[in-house]
Amino acid sequence: MQQVVDFILELDKLKGVTRKTKPLGLERYENSAEHSWQLAMLASALVRFAEQPIDLDRVISMLLVHDVGEIDTGDTMVFVEGGWEERKAAELLAVQRIFGMLPDPQGARLLSLWQEFESGETAEARFAHAVDRAMPVLINLASGGQSWRENGISHERVLRRVAPPIREGCPALWTYLEARLDDAKRQGWFGVTSAAGS
Amino acid sequence: MQQVVDFILELDKLKGVTRKTKPLGLERYENSAEHSWQLAMLASALVRFAEQPIDLDRVISMLLVHDVGEIDTGDTMVFVEGGWEERKAAELLAVQRIFGMLPDPQGARLLSLWQEFESGETAEARFAHAVDRAMPVLINLASGGQSWRENGISHERVLRRVAPPIREGCPALWTYLEARLDDAKRQGWFGVTSAAGS
Repeated sequence: MQQVVDFILELDKLKGVTRKTKPLGLERYENSAEHSWQLAMLASALVRFAEQPIDLDRVISMLLVHDVGEIDTGDTMVFVEGGWEERKAAELLAVQRIFGMLPDPQGARLLSLWQEFESGETAEARFAHAVDRAMPVLINLASGGQSWRENGISHERVLRRVAPPIREGCPALWTYLEARLDDAKRQGWFGVTSAAGS
Repeated sequence: MQQVVDFILELDKLKGVTRKTKPLGLERYENSAEHSWQLAMLASALVRFAEQPIDLDRVISMLLVHDVGEIDTGDTMVFVEGGWEERKAAELLAVQRIFGMLPDPQGARLLSLWQEFESGETAEARFAHAVDRAMPVLINLASGGQSWRENGISHERVLRRVAPPIREGCPALWTYLEARLDDAKRQGWFGVTSAAGS
């Protein structure tokens, strides 16, 4: 039992990993724990639009664990260009450490879910990726582009990063977002693209 | 698709519903969205200790939705004595409004999960209740009783509120917690009980 307790207190640290988006109406930045909760809820709401029939429960469990490695590495904005492989290697070490705090089969199950998400090969993982990429876009569309403007993210850069995974995992969601993003561009909700790698 | 988007942006408000416990090492109070995420993770870690075999996926989905009504009602500490039925009625109206934003079957599924949790009759709901009651206790045991001391909650009052549901849904966890709570009492981590109803 002490292993379970040590594990859940270690996970408490994800509440302190901050992202670039702010919850609507709040001044603080969102953290990766509440973000993970919201992704699970978005998957539940969106399941009828998945590109093919999927096991929603596995999608939810993947989304709940997919950011746990950030406890050691911190959050990295999806628009950062360089060093992706190094960060993913560091995240793998982190989740091996953290899920390894639990005895098997519970620890192995969580690591397997994390790896399924990262590999992106199953229909469930592709849907989960679509959900993960779409959520900050939806928040930005509701906030007038708060994190795009603060971080100098252009319309073109958003499209390049989010269109392929969303189109692949949830085509109907991409059809919806493409039109909304065009409208956001007309409204001036994007930043000016800064130098590559920033 | 617009219904899904309106729904998930409505859920964003749960990030702004604050509870009485603070994440370990942070100065702010925890919110009900990140709390819901942590409960789902605790259920995953603890499942081998459930009182009887359970469907973990349903437990997780219940825990993710069980606090959504607080978007309209706010969080109520479990130690508040009076007005429980009125608050539960208000929460029911809230979740009917919020889950009703989604078309069925997704909206009906979420409402059904919320009702299963509230009824507390299935083995899954009982395990979910044990998890929900245990998490703030575990945080208090790691913080020297932060929310117990701030709110004048005595050792006796904690036992009265959390022992029955935890013992029923996860007996091994109660065995563990009972000893830890006795030790916390010796350490002076509880508040002085204030007037009933406060």
